[in-house]
This record gives sequence, C-alpha cells and structure tokens, in this order.
Amino acid sequence: MSSKVHVAGVGSTKFGVLPGRNLQSLAVEAARAALADSKIPPDKIRCVFVGNFVGGIMTGQELLGPIVAADLGLKNVAAIKIEAACASSSAAVNIAHRLISAGAEEAVLVVGVERLTGAPRDALTTAMTAAIDQGTEGGAGLTFPGFWGMVMARHMHLYGTTREQVAAVTVKNRRFGAGNPLAQFQKPVELEAVMNSPAVCDPIRRFDCCPATDGAAALVLTGEALARQFGSPSVGIAASVLVNGPVRITDYADITTHDGTVQAAQRAYAISGVSPEDIDVAELHDCFSVAEIVDSEDLGFFAKGEGGPAVAQAPSARNTKVTINPSGGLLSKGHPTGATGCGQIYEVVMQMRGRHPNQVANARLGLTHNGGGTAAAVTVHILEALS
Amino acid sequence: MSSKVHVAGVGSTKFGVLPGRNLQSLAVEAARAALADSKIPPDKIRCVFVGNFVGGIMTGQELLGPIVAADLGLKNVAAIKIEAACASSSAAVNIAHRLISAGAEEAVLVVGVERLTGAPRDALTTAMTAAIDQGTEGGAGLTFPGFWGMVMARHMHLYGTTREQVAAVTVKNRRFGAGNPLAQFQKPVELEAVMNSPAVCDPIRRFDCCPATDGAAALVLTGEALARQFGSPSVGIAASVLVNGPVRITDYADITTHDGTVQAAQRAYAISGVSPEDIDVAELHDCFSVAEIVDSEDLGFFAKGEGGPAVAQAPSARNTKVTINPSGGLLSKGHPTGATGCGQIYEVVMQMRGRHPNQVANARLGLTHNGGGTAAAVTVHILEALS
Repeated sequence: MSSKVHVAGVGSTKFGVLPGRNLQSLAVEAARAALADSKIPPDKIRCVFVGNFVGGIMTGQELLGPIVAADLGLKNVAAIKIEAACASSSAAVNIAHRLISAGAEEAVLVVGVERLTGAPRDALTTAMTAAIDQGTEGGAGLTFPGFWGMVMARHMHLYGTTREQVAAVTVKNRRFGAGNPLAQFQKPVELEAVMNSPAVCDPIRRFDCCPATDGAAALVLTGEALARQFGSPSVGIAASVLVNGPVRITDYADITTHDGTVQAAQRAYAISGVSPEDIDVAELHDCFSVAEIVDSEDLGFFAKGEGGPAVAQAPSARNTKVTINPSGGLLSKGHPTGATGCGQIYEVVMQMRGRHPNQVANARLGLTHNGGGTAAAVTVHILEALS
Repeated sequence: MSSKVHVAGVGSTKFGVLPGRNLQSLAVEAARAALADSKIPPDKIRCVFVGNFVGGIMTGQELLGPIVAADLGLKNVAAIKIEAACASSSAAVNIAHRLISAGAEEAVLVVGVERLTGAPRDALTTAMTAAIDQGTEGGAGLTFPGFWGMVMARHMHLYGTTREQVAAVTVKNRRFGAGNPLAQFQKPVELEAVMNSPAVCDPIRRFDCCPATDGAAALVLTGEALARQFGSPSVGIAASVLVNGPVRITDYADITTHDGTVQAAQRAYAISGVSPEDIDVAELHDCFSVAEIVDSEDLGFFAKGEGGPAVAQAPSARNTKVTINPSGGLLSKGHPTGATGCGQIYEVVMQMRGRHPNQVANARLGLTHNGGGTAAAVTVHILEALS
C-alpha cells in the first residue's frame, strides 16, 4: 500500500436545513475551510471540480465550477461540475485522483454541494428521479423509496432479514448522529419509533429514509511532494475506484446484490492490498436503512444475508472490527446528494487524524462507499492514516 | 509541436429539431459512430465523459454517464457527466486530454449531447440562465441575448463596427451551413433579411441568434500507442486549454474583450508553438453574430475592432488565411449546447482529414473555441493534421 494522493485539507458546512443559503455560498464556505486546513497556497490549484447532482433542477443554477472558482478568487483554472447523481462529488474525487496520481496535476480542489430543502416535497421526489432512466423505468413511476422498498422486501424474503434488524440501522446511526455536530438529526430514536413511523413505500417507513439536506463539503487533494512541502501528510488515498453498474432494475440479476458496489470494492481492495477485515471505519451509502445492510454485505464486511443480524448485535459480537457510519451516515448526518461523497471522506479523514467527535479507537484504515442511482455509479475509496 | 493525444474517431448526429429523440438515444448514436470510426475495441475505454448542460432542467434526466455507458455495453468504467454550460463537452475533452497526455488513460470516450427543442420558449430562456449567477445577476433579469446585445452595442460604440458588418457574419455562416448536411439551417439568407428580422434584444435581431438545437457529437481520444495500434493517426491535439473567466458582467473591465478567450488562446498558442496566422480553419463560438467578431479578435485573428471589417470583406482581402466556421457555426449548424464543443472538434477533424463538405484547401492546422456563460468557461483546442 502506498498513497500517491493525499488529502491535504478538508472542510464542511453544517449539514441540515439551511434556509437563505445558495449553492455558491455553501460551496465557497466548505472550500475556504478546506484550503485553510491544507495550508496549500491557492495558486497551486489548477483544477476545481464541483460535485453536484440537481442544482439545475432544484435551483436553476448550473456553471457551478466557474462561479465557485471566481468566488474563491481563482483565475485561469479548469473549473467544471461533475455529476454522477448521489455519487457526484466522490466521482469528482476519483477523476482528481487519476490526474494527481499520474502527475498531471499537483493539487485539485474538489467541492461537493447540494440544496434540497425549501422546495415542495413533490419537486424533490421528481428531482431525484433524474437518476432513473426516464427513457425506460422513469416513465413507469419508479422512485428511489420504491426501488429500496423492493430491495428491502426481497432481502427479507431471501435471507430472513427482519424488520427489527433493518430498523436497528436507523437506531445505530441516529445514536452516532447525536454525537456529530455536523449532523442534521441529533436526537436518538428508539426501535419502536422507527417501526411505527409512517409508511412511505412498504416496507420502508419514514425513519428508514435519509432526510432532504442542504450542505457542502470540500477536499484539497495533492500529490506527495506538495503535501510534504506544506505540511506533514496525515491521510493518503490508498485506492480510488469509480465504476458504473446497472442503470435499471431490469438490468439486475438480483436486486439484493449491487454489482457496482461489489466490483468497486474488489478493485479497491486489490489496488490497496487491504482486506475488508483490515478496515477500522467505514462511511457507506445508507440512503435507506436497508441500504446499509446491502452495502455492508457487498463491501465484504459480512456474508450476504448476514448484514441484518450483524447490525442488530453489539459490534463486539462480530468477526469484523469495522465501525460503520460513525458520522451518523446519510440517515442521520443527512444526504445533500452532491455533497455526500466529499462529506464521507471528510468524516473518515477526521477519524484518521484521531479528531472525530465519535472517534473509533486506533482508526488507521477507513473506507467510503458512495452510490448514485440504482447503484449505477459507485465509488469506493480506501484511506490510510500516515502519521 | 507534438501531439500526445489523438482524435482516433468522431461521430455526430444531425443537428436540428429532432422530435421523439431523448438524450440517451442521441448520445448513443454519436458514440457508436465515433467508436466505429476509431476502430478501437470498446474494451479499451475505461472512461466515458458525457458533456451536457441543461439535461436536468429541460428533460429531467441526469446520470447520463452511467446510462450512456450501459447502453453502449460498457461495464465497470468511470462514467460521469461534465458540465460547464455551453462549453460542457469541450471541457470534458480537456479533462480527457489531461488524463491521456499524463498516461493515466489510454482512451477516453467523450460525448456531448443536448435536447433543447420541444419545450415552450420561456422554458428554454429560463434554462439558459442557469449559466448566469442566480445569486447576483440572474435576479436582475439578465439573459444571454441581453448580454450579447450589450456586447454588440458597446463594440459598435467603441470601434465603429456597423450593423451591416455584424449581419455579414450570419450571411457568411448561413452560406456555409447550406453546404453542411449536419446543419440545422441549410438555406442562405441575404443581408437585408438579417437586418430586417424581428428585434430580440436591441441591437440583436432574430437572425443574429443561433437556434435552439437537438443533437450529439462524440470523440474517441487516445494516446499515440493505441492510435498507431488500431489505425494510422490522422489528427492530433496540439493544445487543449480550459480556463475560467468572469462569471458576471460586473466582473468585466470591458465586455468587448473576453479575458477567458484571450487567456485560453494565448496558452494554446504557447503550448503548441502555433501563431494565429498559422491556423487554416477555426470553429468558434458564434452563439450570436457579434460573438464571432469578438471571438475572432480575442483569438488573435484580427486586432480589436477589426473583426467587423474583416468579416465583411472577402477573405482574400485579409492578412490571415483562416476560414472561420465553415461548418456554418452555431448560427447555422445549430447550438445543442452540451454537444457544441465536441461538434466543433468533429468539424475540424473532418477538415484535417480533407473530407469536409465545405473543405478548406490544404487545411493542416485547426482551432476550436467554445465558451460557457459570460465567457466564464472557455476552451481552446488546436488540432493538427498528421498524415
């Protein structure tokens, strides 16, 4: 394992309902924090990648690359928006990683940003379906709660996963969220409250769903030379993988196994020489409670069908040591779609630095998993503590 | 001059009003044509970049990277959308160029696509303003015809550019469009018809404006080794530059000089060792007739203020040999925003191959210029014939 790309700086806004803020101001706040944290002079930045999913549909704003770059005072840089649905900003990290590891760039600023609140609920549901192929399944009325409802029902059918086990994901992540000042939800919930919350798409209930969230997170990624020149490298990226997976339910052999996640994870483990058992902390894409179970299996933390029992037991009862979503996850920290990927890496970097509010003891290896659409765009990043 | 990146294949749909087509089908048509033209086996493609501007706002479709990749049968690739307003797909070419020239990728498929017709006219106008900063000038009611109207009025005031000279751009480009089977407008127009067309944003009239257009264009970009392995390299990219420029009118010292274009062109000439006088053919961003005059000056083809007289004279009366927009340009070929950048490179590649319907004799060096927003994202590419 050797990281050619370093996370030299991280920044984040609060995640939550942030009225009166636009995409620009959120992105700039997070980016300024990341630049300050990195100590890298801004003139070393030649590429600004803004990860964003539905800024156009929800707020009428595109061209975020040049706008954010201009507001940061950066001139004559390559400033673009990168979109891969809910994996937009981690996809941007992957492209930045390719550029830096090949020596094409010394430093790239990656910002993820989204504004999802303040619009009617229907507008948000419609916006999210932009990640469904409107040429085929979008026209059938499919939504993401519907997709994950089918996944949940099928997982329960095939593996005997119980309603209580799925609800336990929310209980765990709400407990973690209560300890994370950046999280949208900071109150724990009891199992009964999850089980009895209003139905959304049977068997999914309200507390099985992540909230609509505003927020931004930013990363300054650099090569090793720059990281050493302006500080002592603390966190390296041991693997960065972005793959496409099935874009339609009808492309799935089995909707309880997400090929994109499986492929991305296998590649990331192969590149880094790390095994799932080695990972201390993981931030994975729990857009719905059942998603954490599916993802934790597809990432190799548990065998297929064992994700439900695993989450319902105390972590000490499991074979793996991984702590999953100590940030509170999407369920509790919130899911500002375009910002989520950078936000997950922000959380794991804080764990690697030993400075997370829900610190995992001796965390040296972390993993992030971020998915867009029907696991149609999936990233896996493996991060390592270097100091 | 030495090109490390080759345009191994190009493909394009017809540009025009294409009812019944969605983004996916247009993108896939162009991409399949480019892959076939390149003779590169599809399994060599590990990155698919889809340039698109307002697919979300106009059609409700995002996630175009994975959808297009899936429909091409490409699995486990890095598939993303790249957005930089009307420069989206040339910005994607720039990122691909960085990856290939640094050896990070052997081959990248870049597809530009847009669907702008079939919606009410107000919807299109609103969609286009997504490239204006909604936090500042968008709220003031600024539109792009308005921006270019101000540019035109100011250019006439400062340099004595005449209404007839500006109209001559449309006449020239409509004449070229009449010879290009891919062009949306295939009928020439007379100077009087342009001068007397209905007012849009004074002094801009209808025939000074590019149309709303549907279409897609695609490029297979490769390193030299792959280009040689699967064919004889015919067109190389001697320079690829993407810079950000002012995102607001109030950021401009002078709206008749577009810093983004000036900076991008100077860098592209420096990288390639080419001078404006060396360029045989240029496809530049004539979204409005006056834009061709401003751009042709900012690119160094004419001194500031001489772009108007130059276009109104016969090309033989000018110092430079460049033929501008023999495709018909945005004014006549059309402007499917996200597709335009790839479409311009498609046109210049055909010129370099000696196979353009409006062939420029002995064309060996070509330039493309593509701008997004208020010249807020600008690309300049210099292409060279290799055989």
